[in-house]
Amino acid sequence: MPDYKLHCFAESGNAYKAALMLELTGQDWQPVFVDFFNGQTRGQEWRDAVNEQGEVPVLEHAGQKLTQSALILEYLAERTGQFGPRDDAEKREIWRWMLFDNHKFTSYYAALRFLLCLKKTGETDVTGFLRERATAAYRIVDAHLAKTPFMVGGRLTIADLSLAGYVFMPEDTGIVLTEFSHIEAWKQRIQVLQGWKHPYELMPRTA
Amino acid sequence: MPDYKLHCFAESGNAYKAALMLELTGQDWQPVFVDFFNGQTRGQEWRDAVNEQGEVPVLEHAGQKLTQSALILEYLAERTGQFGPRDDAEKREIWRWMLFDNHKFTSYYAALRFLLCLKKTGETDVTGFLRERATAAYRIVDAHLAKTPFMVGGRLTIADLSLAGYVFMPEDTGIVLTEFSHIEAWKQRIQVLQGWKHPYELMPRTA
Repeated sequence: MPDYKLHCFAESGNAYKAALMLELTGQDWQPVFVDFFNGQTRGQEWRDAVNEQGEVPVLEHAGQKLTQSALILEYLAERTGQFGPRDDAEKREIWRWMLFDNHKFTSYYAALRFLLCLKKTGETDVTGFLRERATAAYRIVDAHLAKTPFMVGGRLTIADLSLAGYVFMPEDTGIVLTEFSHIEAWKQRIQVLQGWKHPYELMPRTA
Repeated sequence: MPDYKLHCFAESGNAYKAALMLELTGQDWQPVFVDFFNGQTRGQEWRDAVNEQGEVPVLEHAGQKLTQSALILEYLAERTGQFGPRDDAEKREIWRWMLFDNHKFTSYYAALRFLLCLKKTGETDVTGFLRERATAAYRIVDAHLAKTPFMVGGRLTIADLSLAGYVFMPEDTGIVLTEFSHIEAWKQRIQVLQGWKHPYELMPRTA
């Protein structure tokens, strides 16, 4: 029996945040595949049994079910003593970037990728809107990474792992990534970390 | 000199979360008007001086600048001893709803209201998309409020204040609010709290 079970699927960058944290900290964990694309998270049964918010990731540990990637990251940082804040000021900085990630950076990018690359709607007014919003969020993170190698405290923290949820996804969303040279350099710093794996290698893919 | 300064404008429900918390907890505070609609938060000067994330609210207190509504709410709960969690389990529940709020409940609703009611784009594919996403988030919160008078612990907490950011905004977004009877009842419970004020009475409006 593994210590941790993670309800997830490989296409979910939000699940990847937790999966990569488990991997980088060397935990004994097992993925539990969630069939998102066939509606599993929208079903009442799944919501009652696993997460009323209808989302992955969900982390099972020691009889508890934890949801929301930022909370899961914090929980794992506290338990493992890795990638967490060193003091209250860092804690606030980490949380402020995780919140920005949830509100804007991950959310607009993930919605754009879902429609354009997975649902394959083609280019529409909606994908145009989402790309504009995602690009604005990318600019803000890129400007921050112009000043520092990692988001908070000069070293990898869970703020980076939150923001990195979707940045390794291979699908082309039409955002010109080369314009964000500081984000590109930061991605390379993350990819060379001991234990780093691509989302599609860490979690089960939908058939 | 007031204890707290809040960079805000009345049309911002994210700023309202902090403003209402300051008011309900009886703090000595003053709004600092931000001219969002004329681009102030997009300017480099404002970003360098106030918030690199380009967002309100920003709370100034004791020489610090705090950003992100959820973090501001937690800070004020800790300082005032009001509307915060009673234990770690409640803390996690509060945070998981504040994260859901930032990721989905507030964010899709606020974007819809901005386009349809403030920018007045008319009904478009984008407003249709945002309405569908906002409605899905409303359904999840409504289902939760069917079981409990407030989001966490049976009493008002900062989780409620976060989710309530935009629910009192008067503009018609085309979401049929009467379908969400538990949210409507919860709004009434909040509105009768001692000290409650409407966002447009708490903060300066754009001319």
